[in-house]
Amino acid sequence: MGHNTPRDTSPLVSVLTIDTMNPNVKNVEYAVRGPIVQRAVQIEKELREGMKKPFTEVIKANIGDAHAMGQQPITFFRQVLALCSYPELLKDNMFPEDAKSRARRILQACGGSSLGAYSASQGIDCVRQDVARYIERRDGGVPCDPDNVYLTSGASDGIVTMLKLLVCGEGASKTGVMISIPQYPLYSAALAELGAVQVNYYLNEEKCWSMDLSELERSLAEARKHCNPKVLCIINPGNPTGQVQSRQCIEDVIRFAAKEHLFLMADEVYQDNVYAEGCQFHSFKKVLFELGPQYSNTVELVSFHSTSKCYMGECGFRGGYMEVINMDPEVKAQLIKLVSVRLCPAVPGQALMDMVVNSPQPGEPSYTTFMKERTATLSLLAEKAKLTEEMLNTVPGITCNPVQGAMYSFPNISLPQKAIKEAKALGQAPDMFYCMKMLEETGICLVPGSGFGQKDGTYHFRMTILPPTDKLKLLLAKVKEFHQKFTRQYS
Amino acid sequence: MGHNTPRDTSPLVSVLTIDTMNPNVKNVEYAVRGPIVQRAVQIEKELREGMKKPFTEVIKANIGDAHAMGQQPITFFRQVLALCSYPELLKDNMFPEDAKSRARRILQACGGSSLGAYSASQGIDCVRQDVARYIERRDGGVPCDPDNVYLTSGASDGIVTMLKLLVCGEGASKTGVMISIPQYPLYSAALAELGAVQVNYYLNEEKCWSMDLSELERSLAEARKHCNPKVLCIINPGNPTGQVQSRQCIEDVIRFAAKEHLFLMADEVYQDNVYAEGCQFHSFKKVLFELGPQYSNTVELVSFHSTSKCYMGECGFRGGYMEVINMDPEVKAQLIKLVSVRLCPAVPGQALMDMVVNSPQPGEPSYTTFMKERTATLSLLAEKAKLTEEMLNTVPGITCNPVQGAMYSFPNISLPQKAIKEAKALGQAPDMFYCMKMLEETGICLVPGSGFGQKDGTYHFRMTILPPTDKLKLLLAKVKEFHQKFTRQYS
Repeated sequence: MGHNTPRDTSPLVSVLTIDTMNPNVKNVEYAVRGPIVQRAVQIEKELREGMKKPFTEVIKANIGDAHAMGQQPITFFRQVLALCSYPELLKDNMFPEDAKSRARRILQACGGSSLGAYSASQGIDCVRQDVARYIERRDGGVPCDPDNVYLTSGASDGIVTMLKLLVCGEGASKTGVMISIPQYPLYSAALAELGAVQVNYYLNEEKCWSMDLSELERSLAEARKHCNPKVLCIINPGNPTGQVQSRQCIEDVIRFAAKEHLFLMADEVYQDNVYAEGCQFHSFKKVLFELGPQYSNTVELVSFHSTSKCYMGECGFRGGYMEVINMDPEVKAQLIKLVSVRLCPAVPGQALMDMVVNSPQPGEPSYTTFMKERTATLSLLAEKAKLTEEMLNTVPGITCNPVQGAMYSFPNISLPQKAIKEAKALGQAPDMFYCMKMLEETGICLVPGSGFGQKDGTYHFRMTILPPTDKLKLLLAKVKEFHQKFTRQYS
Repeated sequence: MGHNTPRDTSPLVSVLTIDTMNPNVKNVEYAVRGPIVQRAVQIEKELREGMKKPFTEVIKANIGDAHAMGQQPITFFRQVLALCSYPELLKDNMFPEDAKSRARRILQACGGSSLGAYSASQGIDCVRQDVARYIERRDGGVPCDPDNVYLTSGASDGIVTMLKLLVCGEGASKTGVMISIPQYPLYSAALAELGAVQVNYYLNEEKCWSMDLSELERSLAEARKHCNPKVLCIINPGNPTGQVQSRQCIEDVIRFAAKEHLFLMADEVYQDNVYAEGCQFHSFKKVLFELGPQYSNTVELVSFHSTSKCYMGECGFRGGYMEVINMDPEVKAQLIKLVSVRLCPAVPGQALMDMVVNSPQPGEPSYTTFMKERTATLSLLAEKAKLTEEMLNTVPGITCNPVQGAMYSFPNISLPQKAIKEAKALGQAPDMFYCMKMLEETGICLVPGSGFGQKDGTYHFRMTILPPTDKLKLLLAKVKEFHQKFTRQYS
């Protein structure tokens, strides 16, 4: 017998087991949908089945999923999507003319005038042109070539694709990728999957999660001892940390990348999510060009955007784009080949991306409603950012930096030694232990800081600011109560 | 100076160049959107700019892109998509009740009742349940657990994800993956990217591209000398070869996989595209279960489906699912973790997948129209399959197997020695040389057989049967004329 005959009664040995599978995949971790979230789904099921709990509902503050938290879609976007999906509606009088003309323009650019045709792998031409014009407006006229724009399935797809191009080598010549700590775990997950070296640089929590040049230098020097660091990733506005980097900081980072010969990846999906007074979004591209041709002609940069965040919050459509700057033309040809294997990003997401970059203009029938909806959403987010910071800072043992932008607070939590010890005995990160307890006792689902990385000996959680104001207040009150109880219990 | 300072006037050395990029990505090839298609796009541009050509239009018969070739979407599907996109339309009287109830059901399963919320990474629960019921109906009652169903972004996404799990090892223990030759180049591209060993088995062109057990055995024995073959991929109905495998053949393949301890991957995206008399689609799963528990409890199988083909042709939505059978539970947990990094497949594509597996039923208001549209599309495809085979076989030097299913013909073409020599002098595959010449002279865009793999010394092209009948006739007449002229020219 042996492994060449089918087994009928003997215990099975599968071809694909935890021992025979791709070890890089095994090394992947993704806390935003990790064990806490799986337990939350289970608890929801238990509640539906009538199990008694000290709460009646799970509040998921673990993920930046705006519509799931009650944020309303932009009417204009959805009208155009309906028109594109079912063009019979173009004959109807219920839709405004600007929605119809946007839909016609997109359909004309689709094969057979259908969202159901494949697009070019790089994305629909006219959408890329609209993206380029949007970037030019955003950056005060810095030129953007549509050939440098690639539509993607959300920003994640673009980030993974770029890392895939960049990673190579073995041993000491293996590609190192510098990422911030705390980071958004897509980065660490993609690096694990690709077998690249994750090079950590720490954000400065004392200075509102800013980037320190000296820390970048330390991290790079350290990494050069054992790998080949080639890439520097920045998330601005920050996820999970909610900071908005200053223009000076961005300038420093670009000079550093130029000096150290690093490829820059700027994750700028929260570019419209800036709340704090005195803060402003500066795109890496704009700053790069303002530094002059010595930089703008040489530094390699890719910037990512998405339909999932900002005032749109359309995560489910998986729309996004990336712009590459100073990319070697031979590599661009390789990039086009690589993306063509997957044929194209979903076309409805491309259409949505187009509306984001080509939204109603003054004088168009939908302009007033669009602006009202956009402003209301962003104002509400700004209010909730403030509220979250303020309420968390009233809790003894919790310290929260201002939520300057993005959609998250990432407060520092003091945990009693006894709790830390108990967590470690269970083989759990102390903040995982804390968050799991909070979930079981209050129904609030947060992500422990250990899922994003943090300085040794510090503990955090990430909480979105997305729940409706009333629910957010309730949630913050419950967090306060839980934290106080937890502290008492383990002191 | 050196590489640690920015360069201003000296020639640039980029961080990312063709020499420093990921070598696996460099090895990727994808003919379906390769150089021929890029040249076709260029020619279209030249035509628009008024350049004179011996033709007025490029006919793209290179890719299975039904809507781009004029196939109409199914009305019911698009109505539901419009309703889901803009739920205000639910108040309108213009939509049939069954479309509204499908839309309500999908929206209820979405976070915040919005397509814009992330879904569970494995896909929306109720969609997976509908997929499971569809599979049970299709397979005559063989049970399907929704937990084994994963929604994907088209079938490509599922195939790449599964290969990612399966590939590991180095040198002689590196995973080998058996794929048919000719193959759909997603497979070779994914294997190149993952650095796996591609193990070729040849389909039998003389027997209408069937699978020979002896050839599988030869291929496997050969591969075992230098790698660790673990996976056997089958495309049925066949792409690019259009065959429909017999039940006996599928049974043989399953017994072979069981005996040789191979993981089966069945690409069944053309399951509704069966045209030839006497041919029938048999799912691998159904045959597996009919072989009895000795097989159905042990053989690991994953089957892929998509919204892109069959009578739907909705490629742009990137909808799809895979069902895994006998997958180790620990590996399933790893699979869920892996797909969660990309958050979720685009939700409109999931909604569309739901309609495909939960289409209008007898008695529902949309049933008659739905069936009429579905039948018309499939009948027309059957007609065009027959037409293509017959017309190609009238050309001396072209031999075409029956197009039993899928959407392609893959005829054998005789090329004169002089043409083969000239192609080789240009460093081109002879059938690439032939197809490129055809494109320049006639505007017809086909994919050379070398892009899919073929027996040494044989030449083919892949041509879709999708153009509208009139255009298809014209195209086939032009192919005939071109082939005769080419043969004369190089004889």
